[in-house]
Amino acid sequence: AEPVCTADFAALAQRELPAEVWDFIAGGSGAELTMAANRAALDRIALVPRMPAGLAHCTTRAPLLGAPAALPLAVAPMAYQQLLHPDGESATARATTAAGVPFTLSMLSTRPVEEITALGARTWFQLYWLRDAGATEELARRAEAAGCEALVVTVDEPRIGRRLRDLRNGFALPTSVAAAHLDTAGTRRSRQRQAGVSAVAEHTAEAFAPGLSWDDLARLRESSGLPLVVKGVLDPRDVARAAEIGAQAVVVSNHGGRQLDGAAASVDLLAAASAAAPAHCQVLLDSGIRGGDDVLKALALGADGVLLGRPVLWGLAADGERGVRRVLDLLAAELRCALELAGCADPAAARALTVLGARPVDGPGTTGGAR
Amino acid sequence: AEPVCTADFAALAQRELPAEVWDFIAGGSGAELTMAANRAALDRIALVPRMPAGLAHCTTRAPLLGAPAALPLAVAPMAYQQLLHPDGESATARATTAAGVPFTLSMLSTRPVEEITALGARTWFQLYWLRDAGATEELARRAEAAGCEALVVTVDEPRIGRRLRDLRNGFALPTSVAAAHLDTAGTRRSRQRQAGVSAVAEHTAEAFAPGLSWDDLARLRESSGLPLVVKGVLDPRDVARAAEIGAQAVVVSNHGGRQLDGAAASVDLLAAASAAAPAHCQVLLDSGIRGGDDVLKALALGADGVLLGRPVLWGLAADGERGVRRVLDLLAAELRCALELAGCADPAAARALTVLGARPVDGPGTTGGAR
Amino acid sequence: AEPVCTADFAALAQRELPAEVWDFIAGGSGAELTMAANRAALDRIALVPRMPAGLAHCTTRAPLLGAPAALPLAVAPMAYQQLLHPDGESATARATTAAGVPFTLSMLSTRPVEEITALGARTWFQLYWLRDAGATEELARRAEAAGCEALVVTVDEPRIGRRLRDLRNGFALPTSVAAAHLDTAGTRRSRQRQAGVSAVAEHTAEAFAPGLSWDDLARLRESSGLPLVVKGVLDPRDVARAAEIGAQAVVVSNHGGRQLDGAAASVDLLAAASAAAPAHCQVLLDSGIRGGDDVLKALALGADGVLLGRPVLWGLAADGERGVRRVLDLLAAELRCALELAGCADPAAARALTVLGARPVDGPGTTGGAR
Amino acid sequence: AEPVCTADFAALAQRELPAEVWDFIAGGSGAELTMAANRAALDRIALVPRMPAGLAHCTTRAPLLGAPAALPLAVAPMAYQQLLHPDGESATARATTAAGVPFTLSMLSTRPVEEITALGARTWFQLYWLRDAGATEELARRAEAAGCEALVVTVDEPRIGRRLRDLRNGFALPTSVAAAHLDTAGTRRSRQRQAGVSAVAEHTAEAFAPGLSWDDLARLRESSGLPLVVKGVLDPRDVARAAEIGAQAVVVSNHGGRQLDGAAASVDLLAAASAAAPAHCQVLLDSGIRGGDDVLKALALGADGVLLGRPVLWGLAADGERGVRRVLDLLAAELRCALELAGCADPAAARALTVLGARPVDGPGTTGGAR
Ligand SMILES: Cc1cc2nc3c(=O)[nH]c(=O)nc-3n(C[C@H](O)[C@H](O)[C@H](O)COP(=O)(O)O)c2cc1C
Ligand SMILES: Cc1cc2nc3c(=O)[nH]c(=O)nc-3n(C[C@H](O)[C@H](O)[C@H](O)COP(=O)(O)O)c2cc1C
Ligand SMILES: Cc1cc2nc3c(=O)[nH]c(=O)nc-3n(C[C@H](O)[C@H](O)[C@H](O)COP(=O)(O)O)c2cc1C
Ligand SMILES: Cc1cc2nc3c(=O)[nH]c(=O)nc-3n(C[C@H](O)[C@H](O)[C@H](O)COP(=O)(O)O)c2cc1C
Repeated sequence: AEPVCTADFAALAQRELPAEVWDFIAGGSGAELTMAANRAALDRIALVPRMPAGLAHCTTRAPLLGAPAALPLAVAPMAYQQLLHPDGESATARATTAAGVPFTLSMLSTRPVEEITALGARTWFQLYWLRDAGATEELARRAEAAGCEALVVTVDEPRIGRRLRDLRNGFALPTSVAAAHLDTAGTRRSRQRQAGVSAVAEHTAEAFAPGLSWDDLARLRESSGLPLVVKGVLDPRDVARAAEIGAQAVVVSNHGGRQLDGAAASVDLLAAASAAAPAHCQVLLDSGIRGGDDVLKALALGADGVLLGRPVLWGLAADGERGVRRVLDLLAAELRCALELAGCADPAAARALTVLGARPVDGPGTTGGAR
Repeated sequence: AEPVCTADFAALAQRELPAEVWDFIAGGSGAELTMAANRAALDRIALVPRMPAGLAHCTTRAPLLGAPAALPLAVAPMAYQQLLHPDGESATARATTAAGVPFTLSMLSTRPVEEITALGARTWFQLYWLRDAGATEELARRAEAAGCEALVVTVDEPRIGRRLRDLRNGFALPTSVAAAHLDTAGTRRSRQRQAGVSAVAEHTAEAFAPGLSWDDLARLRESSGLPLVVKGVLDPRDVARAAEIGAQAVVVSNHGGRQLDGAAASVDLLAAASAAAPAHCQVLLDSGIRGGDDVLKALALGADGVLLGRPVLWGLAADGERGVRRVLDLLAAELRCALELAGCADPAAARALTVLGARPVDGPGTTGGAR
Repeated sequence: AEPVCTADFAALAQRELPAEVWDFIAGGSGAELTMAANRAALDRIALVPRMPAGLAHCTTRAPLLGAPAALPLAVAPMAYQQLLHPDGESATARATTAAGVPFTLSMLSTRPVEEITALGARTWFQLYWLRDAGATEELARRAEAAGCEALVVTVDEPRIGRRLRDLRNGFALPTSVAAAHLDTAGTRRSRQRQAGVSAVAEHTAEAFAPGLSWDDLARLRESSGLPLVVKGVLDPRDVARAAEIGAQAVVVSNHGGRQLDGAAASVDLLAAASAAAPAHCQVLLDSGIRGGDDVLKALALGADGVLLGRPVLWGLAADGERGVRRVLDLLAAELRCALELAGCADPAAARALTVLGARPVDGPGTTGGAR
Repeated sequence: AEPVCTADFAALAQRELPAEVWDFIAGGSGAELTMAANRAALDRIALVPRMPAGLAHCTTRAPLLGAPAALPLAVAPMAYQQLLHPDGESATARATTAAGVPFTLSMLSTRPVEEITALGARTWFQLYWLRDAGATEELARRAEAAGCEALVVTVDEPRIGRRLRDLRNGFALPTSVAAAHLDTAGTRRSRQRQAGVSAVAEHTAEAFAPGLSWDDLARLRESSGLPLVVKGVLDPRDVARAAEIGAQAVVVSNHGGRQLDGAAASVDLLAAASAAAPAHCQVLLDSGIRGGDDVLKALALGADGVLLGRPVLWGLAADGERGVRRVLDLLAAELRCALELAGCADPAAARALTVLGARPVDGPGTTGGAR
């Protein structure tokens, strides 16, 4: 039957994929408390529509990094998409372009950035900080040269979280899948299968620089002509700091529950993060977004937009480019419906909605242990 | 066995109905979070009875729109009742009249308003705003001419919510069921079956005007001799606005969880809505009311009465007029019992009860995202 | 195996009893929300022990209505105990006396008060207010003459709650079971079996006066030489009122969830009730107490003691007098253990414990709907 | 498969052990509400990482009682370890030493203290207060002479909690297992099997002094050259008192839910406890700690470290010394990962993290019943 919500695509994807690949994309770290918290928080939050709204016209369009997008949404950077479909990131990028929203290409993509920008995709390039600093800078320049619109630096992965599913599966990349932007020798580790070990985690430990600092980011900001997006902040103080060093946006994220298990649901920090961001710095949210109603909740709590993660992979695994397209079309339809039913003429209007059930960050239950 | 609570009628109804019709009445929109939240909120709310109350006499009678009713309750407008029983709205209206409470006839009824008022029913006529403005006004005049007591304008359906059950079922009205107040050509769409599509939703999109405004309502209020009820507000500011344009009542409602999924439980807005309404504007509640204890909770939080939705349809499907009658008698018995056990001489007295577990709208957890 | 908690006795009792009798004692009213809330509230409440406490000696003894008892606990009034065991209330009273705590004899007992006091039981006599006012007064005099220590007037039953299990079972008393204090003609109704009807509820409606007032209680208080206990208050204002008319104690109770479904858990009102009671008026709690830890929680929240309800009936059904004795011995052992582990030298000391998880009655979430 | 979290060791242990021994270590007291609350509280608490943190180096090392340890963690005192493995406490101590953290030897150990310190273990000696005061003092002196580093006096066991599993199992120690520090006659009771009775509880009642006081602790503090740790406090006032009599640390603990059922989760008291402790008195937490993320939460709420309880026994039962070693290595790996992902250079840095979901002890829901 025709999928009517993104969960339907999850079921289709799981049917297509080897169990360990499914686990790699579906799983979180540790006991998956944070992954569950992301959904629990979004489900707990409730909106108060304004009715009647007298809206002759309603649009889902919104500016992202200064340019208009069809939706207040970009596709999140997600590694190794040929694991899910032979066309890999090209399929995703084509579908994303058709949907009129930006595509974020992971540094760990299986297709090179030039191939993606050549498709005409509005591309943001995501960077992890490599131990080889020169290689990182080189990639930033390469992305700029290829025509990317922004650099998205992911700051919440000084190392990989303990993803127990991958450890149990002894997960490794198949030989057919390789990181297009890293040299083959350097990524061999990610294909070495070993019981009780995640080869992807081993590779990350080998390649990623744990000590990424604000100074590194500031330097990158100055050296590159591209706008900087800082992905993976949760604390409002880090949001403010990102803005100070000139970031054009932050992504409030816990990496979909894949890094620190026990981290707060990202949406529970959103109102505070949004309050901490000056006007020149957009606030995007990810982690747990599954449908248009979730996007509306994020907007109501102050986000300028969201990144869509796993649902995109579900579409890709289910049906390649067409699957991603259907996922994005579904999101667009859901968001339009949600805006109209909430009485919002556009995404920005959602910010005036009253929200129930948000977790107050400065109220009771928020504390540090300092004495 | 004899039903002892309205849930028993749900079971009887489900047995009688084709699965897709059951789904049409039982379902909500999206993941049905709001539908579930309606019940969770009512179950969370707890009352503090006053005992002993020294009540020689206790009555369930209460004024609704200025005239006394046997209960602080009217039957909610619900479309297409011949789906459930060949007698359709006539059966419901007869039972409602016998129970001494107002009946709200949906604009999308399968029996014409004149037939209903001719039964002697105290009838409120519900309007959706049609793209054909003339037709809307014409219906308002027709309702007044037929002897209706009030116009109930439903403001929370600029379009229909995404009701996934109907989409999955490819739900369409059977040819035997037709909207009595709309011309046949105009409603053909609602009977065209198509996989993955709700014909009812398609028809709504075709026929309903999305841009209903407060000005439209104010004009209707002036042009019609009938009292105006604004159904489908949740935000206290909209309650106040309705009162300002002269509405005699509002219905605080999320349409039984069938419109914006993610909308707050209506009862969680009730105390704030009630505080926002001046004395001349009654506050009614619907969405999730299933028994007399729920009615008492609504009264305690400041409602002047409730609309009863699905349980009426359960009675109708189970046993036609007799079924509706039994549902309403059950509600009456339950409410009488609840009032007596709470120590309330009448529905208005419930307002003095202490309530635990209500969600404070201006306290922690309430926020908008404005920065 | 030897029962180690009162739940073990519930299992034994259920095995002994006809299903409809089990349902009669186990059930609550409506959807049994209040019955469940009683337990949920007690489970939610947590205590902070004081350790080390340096207690050479610890006692469970506490004054109840001015006289010392072995435990801060009396057996709650519960009707028709011959339903559970041929010895009925005599068995319960004997076991209670052996345990050194007061026994409350229900007006609807199957053994006469004189038989109970003749056993040497410290007896409190419970009264419902009868339509026949003379009969009520006559019973009060008879209880005094028989040597009872107190009159417990139950004020939360102006009528019986809708106990759906009894309605479904068409429950009626067997002919072998009769109310010892009411004349046989007057109680015939309680033995007339009818589908969909609770004969016990019918009898109550026939016999009980719905209009019991504070004045009635004040008059009784003056006319009788016995101390007055007002059972079935939840609102702190009613606690204060009871004290004003000279009650020596109140029982904060929702009748074990058998009256108003939707009423608050009694323990959630306890702190406020206790704050409202002047020193001369003891505060007892019932509804949901199942073990010594629950008793300690009640004491910590300000109760002077508790009434034990259903667990006593479980013991009676399981093993007659011996069963009740074992239940009470278990409670005594559990309470002693709890006091020692919390660092309390006696029941009164519990009041100094810090309590987490109590529901604040004047904080957020408490509201009335008055506008 | 290789265990990837401590729960995996629980499964291995349960497979190795007789059911009643498993129950003895796994169980809590009463309905095990407190045991469940320990986990629920830790799961409810969420952290806000600081990213990017620019950490060149991250260490798990932390001072415990003034000396550095490899982790902010010591092994909790747990009785009778030969029940789990023939090597008993020696295996545990060897593994603990290898892991670089202190080992707490229970007074009820099956191996003598001299054997443990001879292994080179950094040993803390745990004392219960015996009725035979001379014996208690003698043990303290013996521990000091053997080279222990601290005396840990457990103050929350004036008697044993009602552990229903042990009562149901009629649990007794096998003849092969004996308390190494008590004389054989005195411990005979713990091996006498009796239906419905816990022989361990009987022995405790016989041997332990219920009246341990602050004065006793103060005297011990003065008479012994060893630092004093007071284990088993929850109330901040008791934390302050412990510090006043010169304790060098307290363990905020509910004994893993094995003493007062209904006691608060220890982590819910941690922030208040930490605020009550002056700088010279460390605050350790136990009860429910199962992984590195839990340790990080404790640190964030103000703990200086934790005691690890049952997971150590799981490792011991699963694989003796090697099993304990793997459990501790796992904890170390998890904590290192958690610190890095939270942006903390060392355990002390965690205290600056924002914490969501902590239960405020002085806010709403905290009350005593005093009137
Ligand atoms: C399979 C997978 C791979 C990912 N790879 C990357 C990556 O290469 N770079 C990155 O910044 N984030 C990566 N992420 C995190 C996403 O960008 C995003 O933060 C996360 O998926 C959002 O949560 P959601 O999937 O619950 O919506 C990945 C996530 C998944 C599920
Ligand atoms: C099958 C069905 C049809 C409905 N049709 C209408 C309608 O025509 N007009 C309207 O204003 N509301 C309509 N409603 C909404 C109800 O008036 C009411 O708001 C809702 O049922 C209340 O929630 P409850 O059913 O949970 O009590 C309909 C609801 C259902 C279940
Ligand atoms: C079978 C049964 C009969 C009862 N009969 C009476 C009664 O005759 N008079 C009365 O005041 N309360 C009566 N009660 C209520 C108890 O006195 C008490 O308030 C209640 O059982 C407390 O709740 P618990 O059973 O959950 O502890 C009855 C309760 C039960 C379960
Ligand atoms: C089997 C077992 C035996 C224990 N024996 C002792 C003991 O002898 N002395 C003591 O102070 N605590 C004892 N404890 C309590 C632990 O020191 C610690 O407080 C508790 O296990 C922490 O909870 P957790 O196991 O949930 O982490 C014991 C706990 C268990 C499970």
